[in-house]
Amino acid sequence: MQAEIITIGDEILIGQIIDTNSSWLGQELGKLGIRVAYRSSVGDKKEDILDAISNAINRNHLVIITGGLGPTKDDITKHTLAEFFNTTLIEDAKVKEWVTKIFKQRNLPMLDTNLAQAMVPASCKVLFNRSGTAPGMWFETEQRKVVISLPGVPFEMKTIFTEECVPLLSAHFTLPNILHRTILTCGIGESFLAKKISAIEDTLPAHITLAYLPSVGMVRLRFSGSSTNQQLLFEEMNQIVSSLYDVVGEYIYGEENDTLEMNIGLLLKSSSKTIATAESCTGGFISHMLTSVPGSSSYYKGSVVAYANEIKIQELGVSEELLKTHGAVSEACVKQMAEQIRHKFKVDVGVATSGIAGPDGGTDLKPVGTVWIAVADEFETITAQFNMGDNRERTILRTGITALDLVRKQLIKH
Amino acid sequence: MQAEIITIGDEILIGQIIDTNSSWLGQELGKLGIRVAYRSSVGDKKEDILDAISNAINRNHLVIITGGLGPTKDDITKHTLAEFFNTTLIEDAKVKEWVTKIFKQRNLPMLDTNLAQAMVPASCKVLFNRSGTAPGMWFETEQRKVVISLPGVPFEMKTIFTEECVPLLSAHFTLPNILHRTILTCGIGESFLAKKISAIEDTLPAHITLAYLPSVGMVRLRFSGSSTNQQLLFEEMNQIVSSLYDVVGEYIYGEENDTLEMNIGLLLKSSSKTIATAESCTGGFISHMLTSVPGSSSYYKGSVVAYANEIKIQELGVSEELLKTHGAVSEACVKQMAEQIRHKFKVDVGVATSGIAGPDGGTDLKPVGTVWIAVADEFETITAQFNMGDNRERTILRTGITALDLVRKQLIKH
Repeated sequence: MQAEIITIGDEILIGQIIDTNSSWLGQELGKLGIRVAYRSSVGDKKEDILDAISNAINRNHLVIITGGLGPTKDDITKHTLAEFFNTTLIEDAKVKEWVTKIFKQRNLPMLDTNLAQAMVPASCKVLFNRSGTAPGMWFETEQRKVVISLPGVPFEMKTIFTEECVPLLSAHFTLPNILHRTILTCGIGESFLAKKISAIEDTLPAHITLAYLPSVGMVRLRFSGSSTNQQLLFEEMNQIVSSLYDVVGEYIYGEENDTLEMNIGLLLKSSSKTIATAESCTGGFISHMLTSVPGSSSYYKGSVVAYANEIKIQELGVSEELLKTHGAVSEACVKQMAEQIRHKFKVDVGVATSGIAGPDGGTDLKPVGTVWIAVADEFETITAQFNMGDNRERTILRTGITALDLVRKQLIKH
Repeated sequence: MQAEIITIGDEILIGQIIDTNSSWLGQELGKLGIRVAYRSSVGDKKEDILDAISNAINRNHLVIITGGLGPTKDDITKHTLAEFFNTTLIEDAKVKEWVTKIFKQRNLPMLDTNLAQAMVPASCKVLFNRSGTAPGMWFETEQRKVVISLPGVPFEMKTIFTEECVPLLSAHFTLPNILHRTILTCGIGESFLAKKISAIEDTLPAHITLAYLPSVGMVRLRFSGSSTNQQLLFEEMNQIVSSLYDVVGEYIYGEENDTLEMNIGLLLKSSSKTIATAESCTGGFISHMLTSVPGSSSYYKGSVVAYANEIKIQELGVSEELLKTHGAVSEACVKQMAEQIRHKFKVDVGVATSGIAGPDGGTDLKPVGTVWIAVADEFETITAQFNMGDNRERTILRTGITALDLVRKQLIKH
């Protein structure tokens, strides 16, 4: 059972808007057990739209089209669909009543173009749009294949899909059981991770696949399985994930839509601990990550961003002597920063960073990308040195993630 | 001259990641005068990739493929391209040297899968990847059509496209004279901006178009012109932009790839002024924005993130009395924070924020989204209240941008 998503509109092709509809539909269809096998985008051009629909029907059971249903001249999806299915447009009384009501409610004059929204291809099933004026459309071919057309406005598309399409799709198709599990790792590169879990990967059954999804400082592992036996699939997946924890558990910081900062929040909350940061090279980024979590005020107290050395001295008690001997990018300096912020802000965990984000400031001994991180709690202060590479933006990002990962490990340890 | 973008990867189809590469490429190709006419996405499946490439070549002059070049088993783009172009993989000495160097620099052991990155199809031109280990590839067909393969990791893709592809594309194809000018505004909504500049928009010549590109807190105005007379087009564009400055100059903070924080850096540098922030609701985000600029250490000294009230009292001298009477989200509080950080960190400009980012903490009088901002310099302390809406992430972002825009205006004024 596979599907194709077609998006229509020049604004997508020239990159003026980012297509978020297709990702959302991909996820929702996946939950129903429908695999999106293709996506395509074409402009507001009749021939291209006809071609795309015809290709998509040939290679899929389901085609979902978004976009091109607005009231303006460049929106031609509806007429093109009528042509494709060899039918004419007729007025739909229910849609007409709805559109009229909306304009009355909003106290807006109604234009002919607005009333034209009530004209629909005669052979389609109309999908009611509670969130707007353009209805969705459901077409069936002789082979019982389905073509659905939805508006491009995200919240209208989502409303129609959820309220109208989901029940119709479940009734029309016999859907399999699809299960996804995503495991989130940090602190290990894609290829090293792959090596460590090669035994698991090599013994995956044919109906379960694994994908590596790397981003800066992190790798997500996504297992996807399909089976007629939902319970069995669920258990198989559990077993695989459990063996994954056995092998690389120390790198796993969460599952599905977790974030590192969210999970640190949970760890802090559950142990009633508080945190503060003393940042140099990350310039407030760790603080920003921590406070991006709703409710973070219950465990995050604040930070000192000590970018200039004089602020390190004045606010964090780093001595001039230390800075002269070791420099600001040193183990001694971050250790002092982490311990001092912990003490000064009266928190359980203090985190500190100091490094050379670049592009300037590197030396032979301490090249651009050199970063020291320290995490201090009541038992110990751990420190670690890294080279984060020569891209300023990535160094800041990677240092933030690495520091939070060290905090996570420290919280689990103590 | 038209192009197709093909993205490869199951993670895109099932909606696990949002495809931002295609939009970026659509914009960049547009700047070169190359129109993206189609987009397609397929999974990590050889037959589908072969089909997609073959379709795309048939209907376009240029095909750009992203994704599927990683070192793991599910990445099959390179082998599929070799099959498509009927060639074998050979080792590229330059790539091998580069990959080896990267691993050495980062002090990491190198695996066979990493070295495999140096294997490239014999018939392609290798596109050097300064930002990662997977090189890009440039293929030409007998009809001089071009197929480019790039990694899916956005920053690697962007580096290779900008540094390697743009010069090659300009040399290979005869591209029209296209001129873009992008003017960056802040502090005014899209529809208000449109109203103010309607006279300019209505009198644009037919060969120059205007696009509004809104993002959180900002609107970019992109003028695109094409002409056989490059010099004339250049002058016309200058005249339009100049009239734009006359009408809405106060909202314009830069052009092209400027950022607000970059331009504030230039203003601070040129006047030899320094800055520090005292942040509550933005939680270090303004500090992060300021320090994202290379060289910011010459004007940015540091920050106090005072998330908890006790930190506001202890570090910024806000009185308990004031907090009791006015609350932390008040004009009196941000005024004190901005003036105090200016004084304490001995800087010329102090910026402070306090607000309710939500989702909790709102009241009838101070609903979620209520934010106070203060900017203090040697002449005055300005304060302003805003409602940033009910989305936490957007409120933090919008408050950061708005605060920096207030700093910009203050720096220009004094």
